[in-house]
Amino acid sequence: MNQVQVGMIGYKFMGKAHSHAYRDLPMFFPKTARPVMKLICGRNENDVAQAASQLGWESYVTDWREMIQRDDIDLIDINAPSDTHKEIAIAAAQAGKHLFCEKPLALTLADSRDMLAAAEEAGVKHMVGFNYRFAPAVILAKKLIDEGRLGQIYHFRGMFLQDWLIDPEFPLAWRLQKEIAGSGSHGDLGAHVIDLAHYLVGDLQEVIGMSDTFVKERPLPSAGTTGLSSKGGVSAERGPVTVDDATLFMARFANGAMGSFEATRFAAGHRCTNSFEINGSKGSVKFDFERMNELQVYFVEDASDVQGFRRVLATDPAHAFAEAWWPPGHTIGYEHTFIHEMVEMMDAIREDRQPVPNFNDGVKCQAVLEAVDQSIEERRWVAISEL
Amino acid sequence: MNQVQVGMIGYKFMGKAHSHAYRDLPMFFPKTARPVMKLICGRNENDVAQAASQLGWESYVTDWREMIQRDDIDLIDINAPSDTHKEIAIAAAQAGKHLFCEKPLALTLADSRDMLAAAEEAGVKHMVGFNYRFAPAVILAKKLIDEGRLGQIYHFRGMFLQDWLIDPEFPLAWRLQKEIAGSGSHGDLGAHVIDLAHYLVGDLQEVIGMSDTFVKERPLPSAGTTGLSSKGGVSAERGPVTVDDATLFMARFANGAMGSFEATRFAAGHRCTNSFEINGSKGSVKFDFERMNELQVYFVEDASDVQGFRRVLATDPAHAFAEAWWPPGHTIGYEHTFIHEMVEMMDAIREDRQPVPNFNDGVKCQAVLEAVDQSIEERRWVAISEL
Amino acid sequence: MNQVQVGMIGYKFMGKAHSHAYRDLPMFFPKTARPVMKLICGRNENDVAQAASQLGWESYVTDWREMIQRDDIDLIDINAPSDTHKEIAIAAAQAGKHLFCEKPLALTLADSRDMLAAAEEAGVKHMVGFNYRFAPAVILAKKLIDEGRLGQIYHFRGMFLQDWLIDPEFPLAWRLQKEIAGSGSHGDLGAHVIDLAHYLVGDLQEVIGMSDTFVKERPLPSAGTTGLSSKGGVSAERGPVTVDDATLFMARFANGAMGSFEATRFAAGHRCTNSFEINGSKGSVKFDFERMNELQVYFVEDASDVQGFRRVLATDPAHAFAEAWWPPGHTIGYEHTFIHEMVEMMDAIREDRQPVPNFNDGVKCQAVLEAVDQSIEERRWVAISEL
Amino acid sequence: MNQVQVGMIGYKFMGKAHSHAYRDLPMFFPKTARPVMKLICGRNENDVAQAASQLGWESYVTDWREMIQRDDIDLIDINAPSDTHKEIAIAAAQAGKHLFCEKPLALTLADSRDMLAAAEEAGVKHMVGFNYRFAPAVILAKKLIDEGRLGQIYHFRGMFLQDWLIDPEFPLAWRLQKEIAGSGSHGDLGAHVIDLAHYLVGDLQEVIGMSDTFVKERPLPSAGTTGLSSKGGVSAERGPVTVDDATLFMARFANGAMGSFEATRFAAGHRCTNSFEINGSKGSVKFDFERMNELQVYFVEDASDVQGFRRVLATDPAHAFAEAWWPPGHTIGYEHTFIHEMVEMMDAIREDRQPVPNFNDGVKCQAVLEAVDQSIEERRWVAISEL
Repeated sequence: MNQVQVGMIGYKFMGKAHSHAYRDLPMFFPKTARPVMKLICGRNENDVAQAASQLGWESYVTDWREMIQRDDIDLIDINAPSDTHKEIAIAAAQAGKHLFCEKPLALTLADSRDMLAAAEEAGVKHMVGFNYRFAPAVILAKKLIDEGRLGQIYHFRGMFLQDWLIDPEFPLAWRLQKEIAGSGSHGDLGAHVIDLAHYLVGDLQEVIGMSDTFVKERPLPSAGTTGLSSKGGVSAERGPVTVDDATLFMARFANGAMGSFEATRFAAGHRCTNSFEINGSKGSVKFDFERMNELQVYFVEDASDVQGFRRVLATDPAHAFAEAWWPPGHTIGYEHTFIHEMVEMMDAIREDRQPVPNFNDGVKCQAVLEAVDQSIEERRWVAISEL
Repeated sequence: MNQVQVGMIGYKFMGKAHSHAYRDLPMFFPKTARPVMKLICGRNENDVAQAASQLGWESYVTDWREMIQRDDIDLIDINAPSDTHKEIAIAAAQAGKHLFCEKPLALTLADSRDMLAAAEEAGVKHMVGFNYRFAPAVILAKKLIDEGRLGQIYHFRGMFLQDWLIDPEFPLAWRLQKEIAGSGSHGDLGAHVIDLAHYLVGDLQEVIGMSDTFVKERPLPSAGTTGLSSKGGVSAERGPVTVDDATLFMARFANGAMGSFEATRFAAGHRCTNSFEINGSKGSVKFDFERMNELQVYFVEDASDVQGFRRVLATDPAHAFAEAWWPPGHTIGYEHTFIHEMVEMMDAIREDRQPVPNFNDGVKCQAVLEAVDQSIEERRWVAISEL
Repeated sequence: MNQVQVGMIGYKFMGKAHSHAYRDLPMFFPKTARPVMKLICGRNENDVAQAASQLGWESYVTDWREMIQRDDIDLIDINAPSDTHKEIAIAAAQAGKHLFCEKPLALTLADSRDMLAAAEEAGVKHMVGFNYRFAPAVILAKKLIDEGRLGQIYHFRGMFLQDWLIDPEFPLAWRLQKEIAGSGSHGDLGAHVIDLAHYLVGDLQEVIGMSDTFVKERPLPSAGTTGLSSKGGVSAERGPVTVDDATLFMARFANGAMGSFEATRFAAGHRCTNSFEINGSKGSVKFDFERMNELQVYFVEDASDVQGFRRVLATDPAHAFAEAWWPPGHTIGYEHTFIHEMVEMMDAIREDRQPVPNFNDGVKCQAVLEAVDQSIEERRWVAISEL
Repeated sequence: MNQVQVGMIGYKFMGKAHSHAYRDLPMFFPKTARPVMKLICGRNENDVAQAASQLGWESYVTDWREMIQRDDIDLIDINAPSDTHKEIAIAAAQAGKHLFCEKPLALTLADSRDMLAAAEEAGVKHMVGFNYRFAPAVILAKKLIDEGRLGQIYHFRGMFLQDWLIDPEFPLAWRLQKEIAGSGSHGDLGAHVIDLAHYLVGDLQEVIGMSDTFVKERPLPSAGTTGLSSKGGVSAERGPVTVDDATLFMARFANGAMGSFEATRFAAGHRCTNSFEINGSKGSVKFDFERMNELQVYFVEDASDVQGFRRVLATDPAHAFAEAWWPPGHTIGYEHTFIHEMVEMMDAIREDRQPVPNFNDGVKCQAVLEAVDQSIEERRWVAISEL
């Protein structure tokens, strides 16, 4: 299979990121299967028509059911709001389409399990959009751990800090409504940290969390939904924020490591601090997405007079994906995580194997999210195995 | 009272730090009361005689009871191992001496309360050695919060990370034995973080923690106790580590802020990362003791095109204690926190008021330490008010 | 003019960067003219055919003369080796084509002046590829200076540090041969620093330099030319390096500021440190391309207790080009400088004005490069006006 | 010789720093000779009496001639204004006293040579106060170079940036008057950079510089001289600044390395950025005095996937002087450079050898300072050997 015909549902923030990835992929990764930007789907015809034109899709539809029936579509890319994922994914799987689904996989663990079951039953490829795994610096962390260069892991400390909700007049966007978003900072940001913890350190065993909504009411948006960074107009009316502004939790990993997790949209000065630190018996690594090309690396066994965290710029030929891009030191950005992600999706289809991360990872993440929610409600440690 | 005659018990790490503080204080802070280095006490006569000579004490004794009976001593400085604090402090208070006691105040909350009661009953000054409060950059953080420049506080994130126990052959020093040290990383390092949280954000309301001892047995030291950084010789025999290597906990502050705390001696690459970050509705601050002269400061209301964390070097005339030292940019070090601490002790005696932090702060810290311990044992949230 | 038909000559490092820019531009900047990737030119038919396919060009030719004769080409993009720029640019101008020429504009000042004259005579648009001007953080520096927020400029300190030539067995690539490259680190890296100095601070008045070639002979490449980062095979034979490995110079700006410049390929640990610092009477800025999304900004008039360099992440709506990309904190990379550059080229054509930087800037840069060369040869200060 | 009786001339900034060093030295370095703070000298009796008391000197005199005649003085420490150094040093040497002289050794190269000759003729120990050599991180850089771990040195880049003169209303302090200070930023700050270059890389061969005085007139101080950071009162009258505000120069080292030097008091945001970077064939080091405990270290031969500058905190047992202080990670400050410096002075006297750096180093530094001055005046490269 040398090309993959893609139908994509959704065309906002993630739709743009995915479109760009499909568009750039053949130029920089010519050896994998080529995604063909066949069809885009959105409910508003005017908007989706314009998106198709701007983002470079051959044509569009307004009903995703139509899309999944077409013979000329191999892969369905779902990045519509989270409450639509389940229905679309299951129907698409049943129609024999490969699946790429943005995170969170679904609004509930049960739903995400249904999606996984449907995908497995249909025998299609399924992938979930944990794009941060695909920063070369993160892949380097994974490599160091897998090769035993950090030794036994003692600590994982993960935080995703943003500050776009600090202004109490920021409107009640869809991401602040539980029935659409499912969750607030926990599901939106925390999910990424949980996935990185799974990827880098392994499964969690038990968790206990705490959570808060600092600003409990916000002005309603005057028209339409509101994106991440722009405020749009607001109306005089206010509505309740039904998701968390911040969620913290502690965890014990199955391998004994101790974990500390935090997700917040109220950390002034942090635009996108998706960060982690991992300490092992032989070394440590630190990552901060605001400097996504860098990994800080420390080795216990360095000569005694020159021990210190190294600032490794993951743009050398020794680093994953780097040679496809520019010479060492010429950095890449946020959008490249999506391109690399789609390389994995294309490779998996071409090589007839499941991509990683896939719906299993999405389910695992969802289980942790819900275990944390339960631990908050019941004020007790909750084992992942309870769910 | 223009001079204060000091008797000090203990002459190791803290004894050296305190002696140096007394010695330097009159040169840099001539306006406060002058400490007179009268008498030092240690059990081993040879060692204490040598310490007296090297550290600059007029004379020495080997029995602290003798010291507290002397008329020419105004202040007793207790930095002997933690298990001796209570008895000495109470006796010294009853003898009418002012008290400076290293942290932890005592091995238990009950003991620390007894110490506070004794000091209050005796009407003496009492201070506890939370020296990190006295870094000018930390005082700047306090000032910004007190002046409302960070707004309402949402998050406190405190970590004290060290790595001196990573080597499993590091011997079973006294700090690893519960009966002497009382606690491991939690009481030694975590106590500092808790105190900074109290100082900067306010009282904690409830906590839940987790804890581990990664290396459960260690070689016994071949002779005598072992200091922090040097290994000394070890014997072939091994003994159990009876304190925690790492303790994490989450907390709710009385003012609603969310707290995350961590203390570990297993964070490879961190020699002395006593760090915190505080996020408020108007700004944030970040501190890391390894760069103790710096405070990172962010203001929400900075002009929209130049928002970012400022690296403030707290060595300007606008910063606490800075003018007593060197011109701006000429940094100070760890030992200066002790000098500033002793300035507060001297000022308090001279001005006939209680120094800050005092035994009340020591008791409060001890309550949190024990609440965390209890939360770990009982696997549940524990309110500070329960203790 | 809503679309611009592009013919591009060259398809290596810069050819890939430009192609990608043309390809991405319409997706992120739909309001400017749309570049149409019409025709690509290279001497080796197999290679250029493959490049056309991979990079997304409609068709290809092997003779640039054929390209510039075609009616369906509006803009000629020249990124072939530097020794070809002059002939192509003049012929293309005479054929009425708009010009985009990679830096260095030409091998000599005289040649670059001829190119400018030809472009002006033909009345076409002309732009030169100083892409670093288009990093949003650099544009922010420019804005702060233009708005007077840094006051009178006292110091410019610019350095472009790389380390890819440290290995003495790295082969004698074309960039190390004077007859093709014109210059070594001076023309390749220094040219960018000079242009940034012109852009940010203004014209230079006089210069004096020094230069060296640390590794004087290198193995010949076994076959074909060698790129920047990969070594390829080398033959047993060696040849002389005829360009500089490092060039430093001092300068006086016309406005009185003092300048320090350095370009080297022998700074171990620096992959792509294109950096500058500017100090003015009211503030300072610092930039390092390895962290290209950041500008360090200092203001003299900040409140006295919170003065310090701010780390501004130039990804907010207040920053140039940022809203076309991702939410705040989601960084961009090296390639985006080219996209922004091409937005300027497209805007200029659409608005019928000269783009900036154009051949005038290329000529100015070349004059400084040559003045420095002359100052090195004659061991004296050379005024730019002498040339 | 187990103790050294010290007479010190001067009691301002440097006098305080030296006094503190003498005072602390026996506590932390008990194995070397013990300095005895015998006698302090200053012209104003009230001031010197107060200084004696505050700084801890046994007694004082107002005439340095009296001091050098006393039998109970072994070492004369000269930190009076620079224009007095020569006369005092020569007389003291002739009286058989060991000499410690603050930098700059003298106002002219000729004077400094006379001082060296007098000291050599008298057979006394002589040391010059280049204190920055004594930061443990700087000593680590020296060690790495001496052990060949950086390979052949290609580049030295040294800058001493301050900003205390930015305010044009800062008064005309003695440091701004050529007849007293000898030089401005060049001799005050640049001298330190030159000395570090000598220490770390070796002798300079030739230099060329440029210089400026940005603020040409300043208000006269209302009374007395003015220190570094405080403004004191100013009078309505103004006087000319007769020293440089900033001086830059380029240099060729005798071993072929290329050097770039800068000293300025007009770099907004830099309080005390005494910094250098050295690039060699096997590695690089970077230092910034504002983070004086840290050395950034890079090795070319690190594993290809983890190459990067290491932030080494020079507080480990492997680092010079560190074990005398606190456990790893507990940093030291500016004043410690003086303590270490005095350890070297005491060691040298005890071991009957010349300390390093001594008057030879002072003369060498002075030669470079003057060669740079001459190169500025004559607008040409000046060989050090010309002087």
